[in-house]
Amino acid sequence: MTGLRLKRPTLLVDEERVKQNIARMSARIKAGNVRFRPHFKTHQSAIIGDWFRDFGVGAIAVSSVQMATYFADHGWKDITIALTANRLEIEEIAELSQKIDLSLLLESEDEADFFAAALPRATGVWIKIDVGYKRTGLDWDNPGPIISLAKRIARSSKLRFDGILTHAGHAYRARSREEIEEIYRQGVSRVNTAREQLKSAGFNQVKISFGDTPTCSLARDFSGVDEVRCGNFVFYDVMQFFLGSCRAEDIAVALACPVLAKHAERHELVIYGGAVHLSKDSVPDSLGRQIYGLVAPWEEKSFGPPVKDTYVSAISQEHGIIKATNSFFSRVQVGDIVLVLPVHACLTADLMRGYLTLSGQVIPMAPR
Amino acid sequence: MTGLRLKRPTLLVDEERVKQNIARMSARIKAGNVRFRPHFKTHQSAIIGDWFRDFGVGAIAVSSVQMATYFADHGWKDITIALTANRLEIEEIAELSQKIDLSLLLESEDEADFFAAALPRATGVWIKIDVGYKRTGLDWDNPGPIISLAKRIARSSKLRFDGILTHAGHAYRARSREEIEEIYRQGVSRVNTAREQLKSAGFNQVKISFGDTPTCSLARDFSGVDEVRCGNFVFYDVMQFFLGSCRAEDIAVALACPVLAKHAERHELVIYGGAVHLSKDSVPDSLGRQIYGLVAPWEEKSFGPPVKDTYVSAISQEHGIIKATNSFFSRVQVGDIVLVLPVHACLTADLMRGYLTLSGQVIPMAPR
Repeated sequence: MTGLRLKRPTLLVDEERVKQNIARMSARIKAGNVRFRPHFKTHQSAIIGDWFRDFGVGAIAVSSVQMATYFADHGWKDITIALTANRLEIEEIAELSQKIDLSLLLESEDEADFFAAALPRATGVWIKIDVGYKRTGLDWDNPGPIISLAKRIARSSKLRFDGILTHAGHAYRARSREEIEEIYRQGVSRVNTAREQLKSAGFNQVKISFGDTPTCSLARDFSGVDEVRCGNFVFYDVMQFFLGSCRAEDIAVALACPVLAKHAERHELVIYGGAVHLSKDSVPDSLGRQIYGLVAPWEEKSFGPPVKDTYVSAISQEHGIIKATNSFFSRVQVGDIVLVLPVHACLTADLMRGYLTLSGQVIPMAPR
Repeated sequence: MTGLRLKRPTLLVDEERVKQNIARMSARIKAGNVRFRPHFKTHQSAIIGDWFRDFGVGAIAVSSVQMATYFADHGWKDITIALTANRLEIEEIAELSQKIDLSLLLESEDEADFFAAALPRATGVWIKIDVGYKRTGLDWDNPGPIISLAKRIARSSKLRFDGILTHAGHAYRARSREEIEEIYRQGVSRVNTAREQLKSAGFNQVKISFGDTPTCSLARDFSGVDEVRCGNFVFYDVMQFFLGSCRAEDIAVALACPVLAKHAERHELVIYGGAVHLSKDSVPDSLGRQIYGLVAPWEEKSFGPPVKDTYVSAISQEHGIIKATNSFFSRVQVGDIVLVLPVHACLTADLMRGYLTLSGQVIPMAPR
């Protein structure tokens, strides 16, 4: 790694760890005999997308029409835009629907009517179901609106009812691995209740799509679902590490940051690397300290385990403050590069718009 | 404004408000007979930069070498890189120093030695002073290191000692306008104490550069300083509005967000507009609610005052949740565009990488 010539904040990606993360998740999902539809919003890169192909992945999820267009242009033929469909982008959606096997998310009858009238050809539709996160989707325990929407979709020749889709985002608030597993079991049970109701109403072929990195990393098995979507696992990050979804040595990205100054009386390092690189996301550690990133040492082949009691404690637009132990503080000099494991890899990657592998390959991301 | 055809999150800028914000700050600073060196990290745009020229602005601050290069390429000849200098970027810094009147920030003797040896020609240097923020810089009340560094700088023919520079970032933690004014008075007094110490050591021409939007918006006068740097005031935002640095009608940017769904039982709107557009920055309101953005109505010529009790309450990668009053909730339909006033305009602008004026002009930003 010391072969890399770094001069400003640079997002390093450990290709081997990424491939191990994909291999591990892929094996878990294959063992469950369900479809793996990884969410590509985390990496947003055609090259990293290609790394999934060796594992037989052909279907993906993305979070914007632009991202869908980018991956369609890079050979992906089966894409779900996993954000409630935006009718204002109908032109771009219509164009995509003629090129690939596109699926949309809906949660209201008005929008079903709109897309049924405006789409040029049959397009997949998932109904978004809320299993407890309380952000988006129709409540799992109120079958009336779900059945009405399914009927409205089924009535249109332009909409192909693929199934029901949920995201257990409340897993991010869990306090233990056991709680995450419980959220998974409860979520799967709830979305299956909704499926049963649809079955009673005559819908016999309803698939279930489930996805978020914490539950998909910790679920014992995937029975009761047909498709697993998760995205963050490709890199993992400090938030996932604190949740217990991954080990520190699974974290596959680190922001390389030049050290600009040292403040001995506070054991603080000023680094070039701030909110425009890492994002402002933060997470409390077990001692209640708000963490904007952990610090990893350079090791021969990758980033080492986080340095104890050493973390990004504050963040400004372009720079950050690392609170360091005596020993780490005295080892690091101004002009050195320190490695920061991000709190939320999706946002850090989105900000950095590209990667450098540990062997020095530049990996671009989708343009914005 | 209804003439704009918006389909996805778009950062609108009200050119008239921007020019009013510049005019107001410029008049305050001119009245104080000090130099105005606006910080261009907020807008990062050559076109918006040009709007400052009508007010006689010729000197600017930026927060990265890349930004300095971009503005130098757009005709700016006097630029301070207001982030402790990064020795790893010496090549780019050296190149810039040969093109423009460049100034750097230093806070250690080792770095002074490094730049003295590496720079090709005389370059301005400011010593960063800490007046209470406790992030970067040398402590104002410990004159030894400040004087030693000044001597080290003065010894080199490559370094021109311009003065001492400070940023009262702790003003962002203030609870009232009075407290901000007090932080300003205290900061100016402290940095003047440091100047007095330098004078006793034989440095008679030490200038003082002071800057941050809250104190510069509220200071009664600018006596005791030679240069004012502030950046955010060009747009202002919800954080400044809550601090009392601006009125709501001074906020000059708003993120236009399509409405994707409505949840009547919670009075919530799901908008297309999330952490990758607004940033994850948030601020508590007077009721202790964590706010990720306020909502403004469309008015004939610009954004209206924030809608009462209506705010972005949660934020995901691509979408946000607006908690709305009954009346606002019932007025807005799926497919409408709502306007979100950002909590932190600098980060929102940095994410959006460009603007649309209310008359439909696209304003690009520095490429990244």
